[in-house]
Amino acid sequence: MSKGPARIEGLQKLLEQNHLDCAMIGPTTNMVYLLGNSPHPDERLCLLLISDDKVQIIAPKLNADTISSFTDVEMLTWADAEGPGSALSSSFLKTLSPGTVAVDGSMRADFLLPVMEAFKPERVVSVDPVIATMRIQKSPEEIELLAEAAVQADRAMEAAVEACRPGVTEQEVAWAAEEAFRKDGAEHVEFTLVAAGGNAAFPHHHSGEKVLRKGEGIIIDIGASLKRYKSDITRVVFLGEPDKQFLKTYEVVRLANKKGRQAVKPGVSAEAVDSATRSVIEEAGFAEYFIHRTGHGLGLDIHELPWIQQGNELLLDTGMVFSVEPGFYLPGKLGIRVEDIVAVTSDGVRTLTGYSHSLVIK
Amino acid sequence: MSKGPARIEGLQKLLEQNHLDCAMIGPTTNMVYLLGNSPHPDERLCLLLISDDKVQIIAPKLNADTISSFTDVEMLTWADAEGPGSALSSSFLKTLSPGTVAVDGSMRADFLLPVMEAFKPERVVSVDPVIATMRIQKSPEEIELLAEAAVQADRAMEAAVEACRPGVTEQEVAWAAEEAFRKDGAEHVEFTLVAAGGNAAFPHHHSGEKVLRKGEGIIIDIGASLKRYKSDITRVVFLGEPDKQFLKTYEVVRLANKKGRQAVKPGVSAEAVDSATRSVIEEAGFAEYFIHRTGHGLGLDIHELPWIQQGNELLLDTGMVFSVEPGFYLPGKLGIRVEDIVAVTSDGVRTLTGYSHSLVIK
Repeated sequence: MSKGPARIEGLQKLLEQNHLDCAMIGPTTNMVYLLGNSPHPDERLCLLLISDDKVQIIAPKLNADTISSFTDVEMLTWADAEGPGSALSSSFLKTLSPGTVAVDGSMRADFLLPVMEAFKPERVVSVDPVIATMRIQKSPEEIELLAEAAVQADRAMEAAVEACRPGVTEQEVAWAAEEAFRKDGAEHVEFTLVAAGGNAAFPHHHSGEKVLRKGEGIIIDIGASLKRYKSDITRVVFLGEPDKQFLKTYEVVRLANKKGRQAVKPGVSAEAVDSATRSVIEEAGFAEYFIHRTGHGLGLDIHELPWIQQGNELLLDTGMVFSVEPGFYLPGKLGIRVEDIVAVTSDGVRTLTGYSHSLVIK
Repeated sequence: MSKGPARIEGLQKLLEQNHLDCAMIGPTTNMVYLLGNSPHPDERLCLLLISDDKVQIIAPKLNADTISSFTDVEMLTWADAEGPGSALSSSFLKTLSPGTVAVDGSMRADFLLPVMEAFKPERVVSVDPVIATMRIQKSPEEIELLAEAAVQADRAMEAAVEACRPGVTEQEVAWAAEEAFRKDGAEHVEFTLVAAGGNAAFPHHHSGEKVLRKGEGIIIDIGASLKRYKSDITRVVFLGEPDKQFLKTYEVVRLANKKGRQAVKPGVSAEAVDSATRSVIEEAGFAEYFIHRTGHGLGLDIHELPWIQQGNELLLDTGMVFSVEPGFYLPGKLGIRVEDIVAVTSDGVRTLTGYSHSLVIK
């Protein structure tokens, strides 16, 4: 489906089917998906309002030129000195009878408040599951963009692996990845997590001043934005000679990643893919050390539907793209995670990330 | 006021005074302000709940260790496979009768939805104006941190100015600033906006592939995070010989910046500072080309209260910190903005940014 009118119309049909009176979209990736672009997000109220037959944008005057450069949607602007009140009260919201509004999940919470005041909806729900029914299935063009981003992440991983040696800090390795992404044309570096030794036991560790030492494993988890689409890859480097236990554990996680990817095909449930990775780790006796879901969707957002986790009965379909990233975390000691991005194809799976799955021993 | 218990208690008193039954704070700078830190923010529900006599945190299990490393507040955790429902329903929210909840303005909108479902509040308001009555007045320690960040931004500005020459792209100048911030210990580079020629006419332009040319003005607007506190500075570079009109306009904007800063002292209103910059620009006949407010508060956030704008009768007080950034924008042609960060002192103003106010001609 092309951007702009076709996607807006698609959402309007979904609003009607789901008995939602109005969708309110902030300057987030939902707006990028629907209009092809979005203005600079800040604390100024900026909302794309969509009912089954109307579309308007409330926007700060400061962003009017940007918005009109990518969409013809009617705009109601407001200046800093006046505030958004009159733009809101002249919007089509006043013609709706109070019902259910569906709001952008990742926009600022306070964007919702003036609309609740003006519209007094009976119910407020998230529009994300509705838009996700469109966003979750990537077009062939979107998959090529994600593949291009994934290959860029492979190259940045190469740079990060190169930078790993005793004496450098996590932060320095992170910057090597960041620099590689930038020189390679990434418009934004989303995250460059480098976690050495015990730090690797925390999946959301922020790269810091810790110095890399011989005898430690290092998790490198990086991603960027290329032509709006995101990348995400994780590999493990070991400085010096890993002991047998580390090697064995690494192989378990690597096998879990492989089995997870092999389980992917149309008609298989998201939770079945989670089970495919988890059972390898459980069979090795490591169940309690795999503390997160197997993966998350990837597209305009780093984290988006589908969630590859226990309890998610969603059936995979062609065009879905997500991470497969089993891990093993021993608090205070070490962490291992091997993450790839995969796309569901008509007959199985295509792995978009291509960096070697072997433990990198330096 | 010190972080942790004292700030929480301060907020509890304010909740009582303002008849607010519960505050709900996401993993944003409000949480950093109240607890001294916050976990990795993502789509997983993470909320600090505060009533006049109770405090709890709902958090994803993944972040439990991080959170317990910086606070003793009681934690209700949830795992990916179960979702946040039972953590929420075992929270103290169930003991409150439906009333008014005050929510973190910049947290994700969908963090609000399960709480509205569980608590069914009669009214939802933003907690930001309430917490702002604490955050708006910086302690001497906070002002020193902001001063340190401002001086770091001066140094990054120097690097960006150095990088400006015909033939390089906006993006390359932006990276020079970013590299300088990083090497200087900034934990996060917030923005590096470089806008050349006609691009400078748009205050929120994103640095792009445009090549800098002789005969063009360039706006450089940069800021980073140092020890959690933010910096923000804007200067203008001209490549080659500016014509008389550009020089004259630059001097008007520079004078507006100076007059704005000179107007700052305790007891003066925010709108009076706006008028002080605006009247210089109006007297020069440029009223319609100054299209935004004079400034915004700065602290843990790049944009926070107070807003220095028309209609804001707030009286300035010692310890408030904000930008003074008048501008001139001629659509399609050029832009000029001169921005400093100032702190209100007991007898006037201290300008934290120190980079020369002269037009840089290269």
